[in-house]
Amino acid sequence: MKKEFVVIGLGRFGGSICKALIEQGMEVLVIDRDEARIDEFASIATHAVIADSTDETVLKSLGIRNFDHVIVAIGADIQASILTTLMLKEIGVKRVTAKAQNDYHAKVLHKIGADNVVHPERDMGKRIAHNIVSKSILDYIELSDKYSIVEIASNDLLAGNTILDLNIRAKYGITIVAIRRGASVIVSPQAHNVIERDDVLIVIGEIENINRFEKDLLLDK
Amino acid sequence: MKKEFVVIGLGRFGGSICKALIEQGMEVLVIDRDEARIDEFASIATHAVIADSTDETVLKSLGIRNFDHVIVAIGADIQASILTTLMLKEIGVKRVTAKAQNDYHAKVLHKIGADNVVHPERDMGKRIAHNIVSKSILDYIELSDKYSIVEIASNDLLAGNTILDLNIRAKYGITIVAIRRGASVIVSPQAHNVIERDDVLIVIGEIENINRFEKDLLLDK
Ligand SMILES: Nc1ncnc2c1ncn2[C@@H]1O[C@H](COP(=O)(O)OP(=O)(O)OP(=O)(O)O)[C@@H](O)[C@H]1O
Ligand SMILES: Nc1ncnc2c1ncn2[C@@H]1O[C@H](COP(=O)(O)OP(=O)(O)OP(=O)(O)O)[C@@H](O)[C@H]1O
Ligand SMILES: [Ca+2]
Ligand SMILES: [Ca+2]
Ligand SMILES: [Ca+2]
Ligand SMILES: [Ca+2]
Repeated sequence: MKKEFVVIGLGRFGGSICKALIEQGMEVLVIDRDEARIDEFASIATHAVIADSTDETVLKSLGIRNFDHVIVAIGADIQASILTTLMLKEIGVKRVTAKAQNDYHAKVLHKIGADNVVHPERDMGKRIAHNIVSKSILDYIELSDKYSIVEIASNDLLAGNTILDLNIRAKYGITIVAIRRGASVIVSPQAHNVIERDDVLIVIGEIENINRFEKDLLLDK
Repeated sequence: MKKEFVVIGLGRFGGSICKALIEQGMEVLVIDRDEARIDEFASIATHAVIADSTDETVLKSLGIRNFDHVIVAIGADIQASILTTLMLKEIGVKRVTAKAQNDYHAKVLHKIGADNVVHPERDMGKRIAHNIVSKSILDYIELSDKYSIVEIASNDLLAGNTILDLNIRAKYGITIVAIRRGASVIVSPQAHNVIERDDVLIVIGEIENINRFEKDLLLDK
């Protein structure tokens, strides 16, 4: 059973969602009031329609109620974003994800029934600031306020040592759950595994402890 | 030694980077040609300057060469983004991160010396599409083309079973590296650990295998 999605607004964010959904085998109807955007996506999306989403007749005639999930990716025109979201929920669309420009916009979207409100630029800004500050941390998942999983780049200080030599679990209370080495991944590495210069360590633990480990790592540089 | 950053362009992306860097204790000079943006960030950033970053005299008079890292977060005005990045590298700024609007823009930024090119809307679109399609996958790190770490929401099918009962490693070739339970995290759970309804499993393995596990999970729903 293929899921059917609608993406309204083909900016960079909406466009990227459409492409990713199509790549995952979903059906995607895209709507934009800008003809040029629709032309670009005509050959990518399952269906592409030039329309103003604030026009309720249009939404109804497209049978929007029958789709599984609608993503409102309208940007600068906050009024259109709010009006569209409101009508989608009134028409009875089950899941609506809407993009917010700021906290006030987000609040209104929640109030009028958006099931999920996203802040792509803000969230990616945070991620990138995080990566910029800590040069050795490449990517991460925040598991809780206290715990994270992070990717840490190896360096000359680590290279050539076994996991036993480094004694990271005892010294820092963190665990190496995997090592990425080129295209391959070593899951649950053993005490005798030797770390190489270009490895990436996947580490889980308390954020404080990970930061302590990372600081000691950088003494090398 | 506090690091010193410059953020040029205070859209949602640049603004978010500035705030996150300040929260991490960094010093941040922000530049925008729009007075309203600078007014908003005057009390947030370390220094805030109304200026056009394509004016080389301005950049030099701000002593931009002495900062550790400059982030060019200019959006729609691709020409200004390119010109600014070019001048920053010519002046001798060591690290420049620039935001790209599309692949062509990214290529040019790399060519003229940007050390790091980012696509916030595109990348967040991918992440969110991923989360939308798989309701049980909450967050993830792509370790390679083949391997991922993902957060998977538990459900009624899993609840009450021990890790041994589920036999996930043997059946799917994937490993539960941690369980998030409310605010706490159980690292390297043991065979006898019982999974609860609202747990989040942190799982590592081949993407194909994780997808297979996730599909079987959803049979429940
Ligand atoms: N009422 C509407 N009906 C249909 N499409 C709309 C409507 N309002 C805006 N759009 C479309 O939404 C798209 C995204 O809007 P805009 O460019 O303002 O967002 P943005 O936040 O700058 O995008 P991004 O940052 O993702 O590139 C545009 O292609 C625009 O034509
Ligand atoms: N030459 C320049 N000098 C200084 N600031 C500039 C220059 N050109 C653009 N800016 C500023 O960059 C900021 C971001 O630009 P814009 O709003 O086009 O980006 P955007 O990609 O839509 O932003 P976002 O999606 O992050 O909200 C604006 O506040 C704008 O005033
Ligand atoms: Ca990093
Ligand atoms: Ca914009
Ligand atoms: Ca944007
Ligand atoms: Ca999800």
